[in-house]
Amino acid sequence: MILEELNKVSDLISELIKNDDFPEKIEPVQLRDAVTLYPMRPGKRLRPALVMWCCGLFNGDVKQAEYAAAAVEVYHNWTLVHDDIIDEDELRRGLPATHTVLEMYARDNFHVDKKKAKKFGSDLAILAGDLQHAWAMNFLLKLIQKGVSPSLVTALCRNLCEMLSRELVSGEALDVDFSYRNFEKITPEEVERIIYLKTGALLNYSATTGAKIALKIDNLQDKRLQKITDFATAVGTAFQLRDDWLGIFGETESFGKPLGSDICSAKPTILILNTLRNLNKSDSNILLSYVGSAEISSGELMKIRSLIIKSGAEKDVLERSNNLRIYAKNSLSGFPDNKYKKLLLELNDYLINRNR
Amino acid sequence: MILEELNKVSDLISELIKNDDFPEKIEPVQLRDAVTLYPMRPGKRLRPALVMWCCGLFNGDVKQAEYAAAAVEVYHNWTLVHDDIIDEDELRRGLPATHTVLEMYARDNFHVDKKKAKKFGSDLAILAGDLQHAWAMNFLLKLIQKGVSPSLVTALCRNLCEMLSRELVSGEALDVDFSYRNFEKITPEEVERIIYLKTGALLNYSATTGAKIALKIDNLQDKRLQKITDFATAVGTAFQLRDDWLGIFGETESFGKPLGSDICSAKPTILILNTLRNLNKSDSNILLSYVGSAEISSGELMKIRSLIIKSGAEKDVLERSNNLRIYAKNSLSGFPDNKYKKLLLELNDYLINRNR
Repeated sequence: MILEELNKVSDLISELIKNDDFPEKIEPVQLRDAVTLYPMRPGKRLRPALVMWCCGLFNGDVKQAEYAAAAVEVYHNWTLVHDDIIDEDELRRGLPATHTVLEMYARDNFHVDKKKAKKFGSDLAILAGDLQHAWAMNFLLKLIQKGVSPSLVTALCRNLCEMLSRELVSGEALDVDFSYRNFEKITPEEVERIIYLKTGALLNYSATTGAKIALKIDNLQDKRLQKITDFATAVGTAFQLRDDWLGIFGETESFGKPLGSDICSAKPTILILNTLRNLNKSDSNILLSYVGSAEISSGELMKIRSLIIKSGAEKDVLERSNNLRIYAKNSLSGFPDNKYKKLLLELNDYLINRNR
Repeated sequence: MILEELNKVSDLISELIKNDDFPEKIEPVQLRDAVTLYPMRPGKRLRPALVMWCCGLFNGDVKQAEYAAAAVEVYHNWTLVHDDIIDEDELRRGLPATHTVLEMYARDNFHVDKKKAKKFGSDLAILAGDLQHAWAMNFLLKLIQKGVSPSLVTALCRNLCEMLSRELVSGEALDVDFSYRNFEKITPEEVERIIYLKTGALLNYSATTGAKIALKIDNLQDKRLQKITDFATAVGTAFQLRDDWLGIFGETESFGKPLGSDICSAKPTILILNTLRNLNKSDSNILLSYVGSAEISSGELMKIRSLIIKSGAEKDVLERSNNLRIYAKNSLSGFPDNKYKKLLLELNDYLINRNR
């Protein structure tokens, strides 16, 4: 049922994005196409679902929250477009990244060398992300057309600029900083903070925005909004822990990027850092020897898996995820039961158990 | 007097930017410093002056428009930060560009090679621009604290996202596109359109925003706003024509970048394209031979200047600028005289005659 409901949200968001006139006048056409690329790709649409369901939880008019749902999705996309440039990821969930699509465009149309095509791809992808950033804000501002009061809309916009952008972009910058630091010296606590900044903050924004539209308030002292923040923050951390686990213990076909790619790209995850913390010197040196490799063979992957299991870090991460799931569930326990509460609880369960 | 008044605006904007708490919580510190770098540098603050003086022109409360003035300045800065990455300009008005400052930071603190430091500089500068984008919007939203109605504020925000961002970013992307096309095949008309998108659109936004705050309206059909648009668009084109002229005929010391650098970087300007259009084949081939050179000697510069003068393009551009100046002046003629009208007319004269 949860997947069916997520699909409904996804279809709705795709429609809103497809029918919105913001991209129409963007020039040149390859920039326009780049701006709509990620937003038009099918996806989980987790953030829009949080907006709409947290609005429904407080018996708000879910239709009224639709533009906010589209806004958080497009907002998420600009951060992905810029992240992909920074991380030099050529793929985004198994499909070409924005800058890669633009690079291919340059190669085919301008007949330039690889280096020039790459520069074109990165330059236009910077601009595509910039336009998505404006597009997201524009969706949020359109809430007024749905009857949300201008003063609540401006408050939601300020939260987006002041809190969310600062947290999210700081998170990305701290992540960049990590890659210049000694991998072993990064602590799981630092990583957990970055998870909040990079993932939790936007989930939190999405959930509280839906609730605020229903409650017609923007008072962060409100107990109900604090519970929603607790819920979304726990879901966000559990979501990321699952992602990290899937990156090592998942099935390649469904996960969209090669297993172990976090280790190849020396991305510090709580799973790996806890493993290193628990292992003895000789085992942790074995694990460290794989960090930054060009690729990891299936034999090496088996070895990595066994080290993580041996250290107890896999068990810990699964336990931690389950505790977060329970904490998230309890955060909603004070609210009356309705269809949307049921969906939020199912979503919570689903995210912990998902295989992709 | 005009310079004194511009300095007053500049000091005010510097104060607003310095005292604003948006950057405070940005992490890490090198990102925070990058976000405030351009906004804190002294500059002409032309856009804030347009906001405030066009507000004063209609007897609006100039103090009320201050946050909008800060908003357009910070907005201008994010576009510069991303442009400088794209254009690989290491200097911005004679001082290190944002990505260059960050590159130096990486070299000094992470002891990495040139290539890695450059990547760090460009990555963090992308994020710094993103945060300035959010910061600009946040300043605009703060107009509510000054008593501007939430519905006018949301209208101003929508103009910023929907019109301005699309125009400005499309202009930058078309400019990138130019660099992949045959220089000779670009027309002066195409360049003029890009001048509007890259420069005129923000000047227009600045001027009309000031007027809208004074008039408490957002009706683009309003004749007064149309006159302000005429004024700002003419000023914008004349401003860019002067920049192009200064790039060839200016004095190096005051202009901040080497004379002829537009020719070295194969930047198509109306001045150069008109020259090529007017010259005979052999003369235009001489001029074309300098396009894309690593540097231009003073002897070559003399030759380039003489070709431009010979073609009549220099006379044309000066005449065109003067006509734009008169057109801009006439656009304001229907409005009652006051201090701010006088300042706007002086600004118009000053921009055409400036030497830097």
